[in-house]
Amino acid sequence: MPHRFSVIVAFGDCDEAGIVFYPTYFYWFDSAFQDLLRARGLSQRKLRARFGVRGTPIVEAGATFRAPATYDDPLQVEITLERWGDTSFRLGYRVTREQTVILDGFEVRVWAVSGSDGRLSTAPVPAEFKELIA
Amino acid sequence: MPHRFSVIVAFGDCDEAGIVFYPTYFYWFDSAFQDLLRARGLSQRKLRARFGVRGTPIVEAGATFRAPATYDDPLQVEITLERWGDTSFRLGYRVTREQTVILDGFEVRVWAVSGSDGRLSTAPVPAEFKELIA
Amino acid sequence: MPHRFSVIVAFGDCDEAGIVFYPTYFYWFDSAFQDLLRARGLSQRKLRARFGVRGTPIVEAGATFRAPATYDDPLQVEITLERWGDTSFRLGYRVTREQTVILDGFEVRVWAVSGSDGRLSTAPVPAEFKELIA
Amino acid sequence: MPHRFSVIVAFGDCDEAGIVFYPTYFYWFDSAFQDLLRARGLSQRKLRARFGVRGTPIVEAGATFRAPATYDDPLQVEITLERWGDTSFRLGYRVTREQTVILDGFEVRVWAVSGSDGRLSTAPVPAEFKELIA
Repeated sequence: MPHRFSVIVAFGDCDEAGIVFYPTYFYWFDSAFQDLLRARGLSQRKLRARFGVRGTPIVEAGATFRAPATYDDPLQVEITLERWGDTSFRLGYRVTREQTVILDGFEVRVWAVSGSDGRLSTAPVPAEFKELIA
Repeated sequence: MPHRFSVIVAFGDCDEAGIVFYPTYFYWFDSAFQDLLRARGLSQRKLRARFGVRGTPIVEAGATFRAPATYDDPLQVEITLERWGDTSFRLGYRVTREQTVILDGFEVRVWAVSGSDGRLSTAPVPAEFKELIA
Repeated sequence: MPHRFSVIVAFGDCDEAGIVFYPTYFYWFDSAFQDLLRARGLSQRKLRARFGVRGTPIVEAGATFRAPATYDDPLQVEITLERWGDTSFRLGYRVTREQTVILDGFEVRVWAVSGSDGRLSTAPVPAEFKELIA
Repeated sequence: MPHRFSVIVAFGDCDEAGIVFYPTYFYWFDSAFQDLLRARGLSQRKLRARFGVRGTPIVEAGATFRAPATYDDPLQVEITLERWGDTSFRLGYRVTREQTVILDGFEVRVWAVSGSDGRLSTAPVPAEFKELIA
């Protein structure tokens, strides 16, 4: 960490004002996280097989938008591990276009397993996962 | 206010875990806001024509996710005007499936006009708009 | 059959030209199909449980776009069962805004099961499913 | 021509079956076309400024899906100019993952200008544009 993920804004990512429709930034947050997993030899699929986890769903997310971006803009998404909780972890995201900060955001993800009733429950994040991601 | 917007979760809104991919909730926040405008006889198009505003872009957004939702779930999005600022306003969103709260979130939007250099700038939210939305 | 599905175009469905970004129409085709299943007491989930099918993936899809649509437009998607094949079926979609035809399209879906090697394979569409959908 | 565009399938592009939700392929068709424009020093924005065109909307699109793709798959989208019409052009798309063909598709786009009544109309594709794209 930190990890960088690149994206070029597509025409279809933009709204009538010609700027990125904001939910798309959260899609890129998720894509950057999956890219980080990929860079560590992991994926949601491999997490399931290796750790028996059902997934890493989001319990909180947010962003502060500082400047607009438009199609053809090359963006960098920098992802930082901000905090390891017991059963969760917080990722920070900064999106930039060269020297311009487009937005700052975050995700809090939990380590989700199947509870005894089959429903999603949380469990401690394995030390091995923490080491792989760090 | 408050205003309610209904949505049935589509298969395509869900990820491999069979639950709503979280950026989609922000798309529904925006859809609920546009639905509120529509209920008041407004739209982004009409705001431009009537108030000369270029749009109401988001400067901050966030959500706390409390329970998952899956396809075919009927959801209610309740939107509340939480605060009028000078050049901005904050909307609260609560998404429920019957008695279950799925998530709570918010958007801060600004009243965006064209600055003297042609770039987006903010301006005071017109009293007429506040009255129409209230 | 036929079955009708209603949608109001959202701001976020439109591109810079202020008209629906065309991939969204295919998302609505799929949503209309899932809505048809729902109207018959079915879903992808229930198809798996009841018929052991892994899904009904698309092998062909297409559309001819006749008129643009913009946000706040109320659209009707009419879905028709055009042909039952042995292991597939073809659905026709007509999207209208009042008397205006926006587009005509189709999907060919297959009845997908797990082959002996675990990969997706096709199997005959059960007569019971055909009766439920008809 | 042909032109190649690369994409890595994101987790959020996939449905419950863990495979790409098919409308996303059309989004990539559009992205590949915009990438071709970019490679030629063009964009929708520059087309408007240089040629007075309002856009290049799709009048027909389709695809035959040959194999599924899942997240983390690296895909290549090869775009070919299949035919110049008078007021339209047809683009072919082949999506592959290494030696596997995932799908073949196409788009027919028109050269759209503002008619005398302000509505979208078609006009001959300029020879200069054809030369730039070829």
